Amino acid sequence: MSDFLSRLAAIVGPQHLLTTDADTAPFTLDWRRRYQGAPLAVSRPGSTVEVSEVVKLCRAHKVAIVPQGGNTSTCGAATPDGSGRQLVLALRRLNAIRHVDTDNNALTVEAGVTLQEAQQAAEAAGRLFPLSLASQGTCQIGGNLSTNAGGVAVLRYGTMRELTLGLEAVLPDGRVLSQLQGLRKDTTGLDLKQLFIGAEGQLGLITAATLKLYPLPSAHATAMVGVGDIETAIDWLNRLRDRFGDRLTAFEVIDASCQQVLRRHHPSLMPFSAPWLILIELSDGGDPAPLNDALVEWLSAQTMTDGVVAQNETERRKLWTLREEISESQRKDGPSIKHDIAVPTSALPRLVRDCATDLDQAFPGVRIVAFGHAGDGNLHYNVSYTRPGNADLFDDEDAVNAIVYDHVYRLGGTLAAEHGVGQLKKDWLARYKDPLALELMRTIKTALDPDGLMNPGKWL
Amino acid sequence: MSDFLSRLAAIVGPQHLLTTDADTAPFTLDWRRRYQGAPLAVSRPGSTVEVSEVVKLCRAHKVAIVPQGGNTSTCGAATPDGSGRQLVLALRRLNAIRHVDTDNNALTVEAGVTLQEAQQAAEAAGRLFPLSLASQGTCQIGGNLSTNAGGVAVLRYGTMRELTLGLEAVLPDGRVLSQLQGLRKDTTGLDLKQLFIGAEGQLGLITAATLKLYPLPSAHATAMVGVGDIETAIDWLNRLRDRFGDRLTAFEVIDASCQQVLRRHHPSLMPFSAPWLILIELSDGGDPAPLNDALVEWLSAQTMTDGVVAQNETERRKLWTLREEISESQRKDGPSIKHDIAVPTSALPRLVRDCATDLDQAFPGVRIVAFGHAGDGNLHYNVSYTRPGNADLFDDEDAVNAIVYDHVYRLGGTLAAEHGVGQLKKDWLARYKDPLALELMRTIKTALDPDGLMNPGKWL
Repeated sequence: MSDFLSRLAAIVGPQHLLTTDADTAPFTLDWRRRYQGAPLAVSRPGSTVEVSEVVKLCRAHKVAIVPQGGNTSTCGAATPDGSGRQLVLALRRLNAIRHVDTDNNALTVEAGVTLQEAQQAAEAAGRLFPLSLASQGTCQIGGNLSTNAGGVAVLRYGTMRELTLGLEAVLPDGRVLSQLQGLRKDTTGLDLKQLFIGAEGQLGLITAATLKLYPLPSAHATAMVGVGDIETAIDWLNRLRDRFGDRLTAFEVIDASCQQVLRRHHPSLMPFSAPWLILIELSDGGDPAPLNDALVEWLSAQTMTDGVVAQNETERRKLWTLREEISESQRKDGPSIKHDIAVPTSALPRLVRDCATDLDQAFPGVRIVAFGHAGDGNLHYNVSYTRPGNADLFDDEDAVNAIVYDHVYRLGGTLAAEHGVGQLKKDWLARYKDPLALELMRTIKTALDPDGLMNPGKWL
Repeated sequence: MSDFLSRLAAIVGPQHLLTTDADTAPFTLDWRRRYQGAPLAVSRPGSTVEVSEVVKLCRAHKVAIVPQGGNTSTCGAATPDGSGRQLVLALRRLNAIRHVDTDNNALTVEAGVTLQEAQQAAEAAGRLFPLSLASQGTCQIGGNLSTNAGGVAVLRYGTMRELTLGLEAVLPDGRVLSQLQGLRKDTTGLDLKQLFIGAEGQLGLITAATLKLYPLPSAHATAMVGVGDIETAIDWLNRLRDRFGDRLTAFEVIDASCQQVLRRHHPSLMPFSAPWLILIELSDGGDPAPLNDALVEWLSAQTMTDGVVAQNETERRKLWTLREEISESQRKDGPSIKHDIAVPTSALPRLVRDCATDLDQAFPGVRIVAFGHAGDGNLHYNVSYTRPGNADLFDDEDAVNAIVYDHVYRLGGTLAAEHGVGQLKKDWLARYKDPLALELMRTIKTALDPDGLMNPGKWL
């Protein structure tokens, strides 16, 4: 191994090869603190060429690679195992904004650029890069791609997959596949980028991407309203789309329990109370006033229990802060069993009712905190207080998951909507995913990574 | 073989197994009449189960399968070779509209449904299925998927790949992969549908798909305007997007030669004359009048050589008819060497100028007819009159292609934007496409179809 490490140091530079526990610590514990790994080392290559050389070296020495971006995975997808034999490959030093093409509405960035840096590069060019998530200051484009990240603007702009025009990736044998031309139409064969998006680094390492840019909206109209049930929310969603088309850029829902959590930790921000709150945002070019008027006019014809339309940017930011503070408020509120589930939007009301009924029967007094992206059928669905005082919660994790996922799959849904699978949901994937689909994925994995060195121990 | 054919007849029913030349003729000549095949037979299965059984039978007898939808491929992708040993599998009898889910904005149809039937099913439910092409009355959803079809609404809605939520496909071993749930977010592993979209039937047979629906626009504003050069067109494109966002649903360009062709065959439709004509369409919910006013206001601040805004639906249809009649008018005008090319939108002006200069130098007096989807960087670029009287045009095909494709690839473009590769561009693909990308595609082909029975003789 010392021969391997000295060669590795020669490639990335000794200062970018971390081997002591103190140096590697920031890379070995996952964001939710559920997985603690023990790596062989952490390497921080500074270019695609260096990544390629590291991969070739690892292949020659049969060393497994765990790629890591901002280390914000909620599923342990970027954490090495405890064997002391896996190399963490941290991409942060690949942080160049390579190219902004405003006429082609395309942005080429390296994998280690944070989502926020990508957003800023777009904005500096008078364009929008629309992916938006709570961890955007830390998470990196390579990780966003590897988990096919979603967030609050998917309703309008799609997930990371739909925002990607092309990739540069280092294959398991170290060769570099480069498809960064920024074409919007190309039918010359298979669309190879699709293999790497959402693959959590198990088929190769993404080193750069060309992303779609959009016009920067000059007008927003934002409202927070309360409605009586989730059925009404879905009805509003469709009527808002009919009326405003793709000017409807966000449609987030927050259930009553989640509102209580927010009220506890942000009392001043939280004057609302309703069975379900909806955060609605319209975006457009041109003047903001008519957009705001149109939203007010539409809302005034609806029945609602509570509601406010933001009158200025400060009020708009306040409404969004409320949405963005949910995760942190929940963390302060104690542990919960978390689910990142999606069903067809039409099935969301049934999911909400049926899950609640069965969980309450199995665990009387259970608390369910649900919020998320109703426009995509995606709920973050968190279960706690299955026992008095929320004690030994995780002893019930398997039973809770089985209830939730049984309903999700009965309704044609998925157990991983936008956070990926990683280590956390690997066994659940094996239980719920179509075996034929899993077999096909493994066939492709074996064909591309016969030595199994790309992020092993995850779901593939 | 007679054992094979009798078993085949038992699966699909004798009346759906065609073996005489007269019966198979409609399936053996491609749309552009460049490829004449001689199949073993044509089978017309009536269900996914029958397709699966046919594929299993073919595998047992090592018979190659050529899937065929509406037989509108412009590249010979659905035509069998001349060996008399390939089985054409025609999908038209799989023509059920399986499910329309308006709350989930999703439509599930079988592969043999024509594009127009899919559009009509969506419209009957008050929704839009936005893919739109000249051959929509004939082409089928399975073919649209297998070629990742584009058309006139890609600027706003994306290609067939982006319009697809899930697929049902029969794998090369006959097993059926079904992923028709209609989820908008799903990160449970690789996105397997991507393998089959654009693969021209070489990795499996698509039998059904769940497609995205959109709000049905209630307002359109449509204009045809003339500008002095292609640079101005690209500038307009970006400023229209800035102003109108995704209400800009079409931005088509037509060059001066193409206008002459139209004028020759549709004199009454064609009052315009300009170096470049642009067909602009905005679409929205709500009332049409403000949308029309906004477009008129925007246009009145621009410099243009000619122009009209449609005042009613009849005038709008007339402008679109002009666009849709280009291919047919060209056909009447005699043969041309056709290209379906795309570059980053920003590179379109250079492509237009550089190609014209070099073609005119190589073939003085050459005629170039260019039109297409400038919003996607995609031009249909047709070359004729390389010799007096357009004689022996195709003797120059290789030389013309080399000039065009050299420029396309120098500018980061593609030789197949939305029509696929098929047989027509197979050799050119081998010449211009990155060898590493081709190698990866073949690795996947070998892993999924080790016997090479799925549409052999095409590009994979």
